Amino acid sequence: MNIKDFIRDMPDFPKPGILFRDISPLLADPRTYRYVIDQFYERYKNQSIDLIIGIESRGFLFASTLAYKLELPLAMVRKHGKLPPPTVFYEYALEYGNDKIELPSNAIHPGNYVLLIDDLLATGGTALASCHLIEKMGGKILEIATVIELGFLNGREQLKDYKVFSQTVYD
Amino acid sequence: MNIKDFIRDMPDFPKPGILFRDISPLLADPRTYRYVIDQFYERYKNQSIDLIIGIESRGFLFASTLAYKLELPLAMVRKHGKLPPPTVFYEYALEYGNDKIELPSNAIHPGNYVLLIDDLLATGGTALASCHLIEKMGGKILEIATVIELGFLNGREQLKDYKVFSQTVYD
Repeated sequence: MNIKDFIRDMPDFPKPGILFRDISPLLADPRTYRYVIDQFYERYKNQSIDLIIGIESRGFLFASTLAYKLELPLAMVRKHGKLPPPTVFYEYALEYGNDKIELPSNAIHPGNYVLLIDDLLATGGTALASCHLIEKMGGKILEIATVIELGFLNGREQLKDYKVFSQTVYD
Repeated sequence: MNIKDFIRDMPDFPKPGILFRDISPLLADPRTYRYVIDQFYERYKNQSIDLIIGIESRGFLFASTLAYKLELPLAMVRKHGKLPPPTVFYEYALEYGNDKIELPSNAIHPGNYVLLIDDLLATGGTALASCHLIEKMGGKILEIATVIELGFLNGREQLKDYKVFSQTVYD
């Protein structure tokens, strides 16, 4: 199965010059969505993982189903202000200004191995911030897993201290 | 199993006077999350459903896993500006100002039966707007399914033209 057949390219979204990779066709095709989940499942089913964390909000679509199948705890990394207190936050620089992400304070026990999931790896900024947040809380990153990787944006370089797995790469 | 044991009350979030129902403990407990998904699965497994639609963003956590189990297409209702064009939108009034939700233009074929999923039913404003959007696109609402219902906010009254199912109610 070629996942790319179910990813639609949308030029100039959300702003001019950006080529958006739309996973709506993948979600709309149950066989392809099942294939993607099962690929993750096969990769992680025999690994020692304590917790799956999904990155808001499309990461939830893959993290939740995988957590169900692996029978593992699930937590959400969210933008500041979405999760009720108490939370732990991590602030990081964007192209213009800063952003702040959070996890529930009790989401991670020290030493927990975390599988971090998102739909897409671009520059890796949010994934890296999520790793820093998880480590700040005492967790260890088993791997960062994404469906799509935009290879030309060199997210792996930014995430060079971590293992990264993606199901399909755009060079 | 009592789902409420895994829902945490957080007073005055996101603003004073609001009692927030936090599903983080439910997600963190694989048995409870599994129970919730399986309750939905048992209810819908023999029904004629063409499409599952999850409401952004906590609705994704339940809609996606259920779509996987039922082997059904999945679509996301999102706030305006998150989905690439072409989309169909529906605008609705909030307490202060308006809001606008969208679906991909090709998400629904006329006559499709849709199961609409969210984590929580409060006043029902977003669910009602989602139903109107789905109907505008030619879909029919099989049922609106939520994990938590805040009964005292009378969401069912606002949604009286539709079937509503919730797994646990706060009166």
